[in-house]
Amino acid sequence: MVKVVVVGSIAFDSIKTPFGSVQKALGGSGTYASYASSFFSKTGLVGVIGNDFNQNYLNLLKRKGIDLSGVTVNEKEKTFYWKGEYKFDLNSAITHETQLNAFSSFKPELPEAYKNADYLFLGNISPELQLNVLNQMNKRPKLVLADTMNYYIQKNPELVKKVINEVDIGLMNDSEARMLFNTNNLMTACKKILALNSEWAIIKKGEHGAIFMTEKEFFSAPGYPLENVKDPTGAGDSFAGAMLGYLASKNSVSQKEIKKAIVYGSTVASFNAEGFSLNNLQKINKKHINSRFKEFKKISEF
Amino acid sequence: MVKVVVVGSIAFDSIKTPFGSVQKALGGSGTYASYASSFFSKTGLVGVIGNDFNQNYLNLLKRKGIDLSGVTVNEKEKTFYWKGEYKFDLNSAITHETQLNAFSSFKPELPEAYKNADYLFLGNISPELQLNVLNQMNKRPKLVLADTMNYYIQKNPELVKKVINEVDIGLMNDSEARMLFNTNNLMTACKKILALNSEWAIIKKGEHGAIFMTEKEFFSAPGYPLENVKDPTGAGDSFAGAMLGYLASKNSVSQKEIKKAIVYGSTVASFNAEGFSLNNLQKINKKHINSRFKEFKKISEF
Repeated sequence: MVKVVVVGSIAFDSIKTPFGSVQKALGGSGTYASYASSFFSKTGLVGVIGNDFNQNYLNLLKRKGIDLSGVTVNEKEKTFYWKGEYKFDLNSAITHETQLNAFSSFKPELPEAYKNADYLFLGNISPELQLNVLNQMNKRPKLVLADTMNYYIQKNPELVKKVINEVDIGLMNDSEARMLFNTNNLMTACKKILALNSEWAIIKKGEHGAIFMTEKEFFSAPGYPLENVKDPTGAGDSFAGAMLGYLASKNSVSQKEIKKAIVYGSTVASFNAEGFSLNNLQKINKKHINSRFKEFKKISEF
Repeated sequence: MVKVVVVGSIAFDSIKTPFGSVQKALGGSGTYASYASSFFSKTGLVGVIGNDFNQNYLNLLKRKGIDLSGVTVNEKEKTFYWKGEYKFDLNSAITHETQLNAFSSFKPELPEAYKNADYLFLGNISPELQLNVLNQMNKRPKLVLADTMNYYIQKNPELVKKVINEVDIGLMNDSEARMLFNTNNLMTACKKILALNSEWAIIKKGEHGAIFMTEKEFFSAPGYPLENVKDPTGAGDSFAGAMLGYLASKNSVSQKEIKKAIVYGSTVASFNAEGFSLNNLQKINKKHINSRFKEFKKISEF
């Protein structure tokens, strides 16, 4: 039974970093998030691919146990394609080309079997579609996590805020939080997320880890000391997917488990950044993840 | 008996931030570091003031118990003056004016009573003077911490590296580390610090805390969740001073104590940033510091 539903893009990525490059590699927010989640829980992916998609890529997701009944094929269009580059500063991508292709007319439709899932991740689809997907559920999931993007914040910040209002966790990175709430201070941004009727605020800080705030608590997760970052693409989605997958495996949204989930999210995201596309995630298993999780504990103790 | 010796600037600072401004307020690397250290251990300050210095400022340091026998007066010059501004991004200062004045001809001379101290902080003096001060000591201190600055890294990176080679901890912030070692990766930078015969590497990351690396260990200290940063000036010096003061109070340089010292450094630096000049540091005592230290523990546990 699908416990975690992930909605997001499935893409071809051509990426160049100072440490190498890949052409038309498997990517996309939905891909990364579902793959990361599936280390912990049965996960279903909702997304669209075009007429040029690579069957090997689908097999890769299938082998991981990801339910693909929510993936539709648009025979008239090609697959979403992104070409980008990271230079010296691996924190910010330079986009060279975006072909939305099949993604531009994507209207996610949840398979019946997904509509009772308790954990839902709304990836990089528009805020309108995020709300639409949420409405397709038979009941309100236990935990809904929505990602956001610079693009949607610039286009319609009020609608992005409405999504945060409707979901449980509006997830964003530090620069998105600063932009959306017009503040440089991440504590202020967290408080503004909470003021939007969000029970939890989580802000991802890339190499610096993540912070978590509730009305009563604050938690700072360290970044993992990565020396060999090859490609940061998908780190945020891996983070979100692993978080939800972990919480679904515990079937708990207690603050204690959420803190752990954040560290599991950082753990999987750190493995992801050590390789291009999903290359490194394909090499690891639960043992690797648990061992690095323990390292996270060790490096933050004093 | 003076346990911690601090060498650095004593200055008038005129500072503007989005949250207010001060004119000719007490500042300087030596001032901040000695004040922060004196919460924990008897501290002596070596620096120079000009003919226009404010006696109230000296009294403020005296009342804190700081030994001022190392402070000389240059009757022919004015006091070091810095005029700067922080805009939206409080991480980087914009310098509007620097008048070195008495500081330009400053040749630190340690009082005899300081020459046996076990803990030495070499603040923002030139690398040449840092080495000169170290040679004035009667014996090698237990722990020598040297700060560095963008200015000296640009001017003479090899000499900055020579200082790191001679001292125990070459302290720098993330942007300085990236510049000095020509890498964007802070793990790589830490390893390069260690390769310079430094037993410990510490990199300050501003709001994101600090990282610490030895041959065998890694530690990530969180930043304190500050909502009301008024003026970040002196944060790095407060961090260094409190670190050394704490270690001197324990008379230990064990890894366990160094980790704690880093968190005490972050604690005092966070109080400092909540006010202009030394205004907020003047309002706090050991109780406040210990209570916030405990909060640091709480926010990093999972």
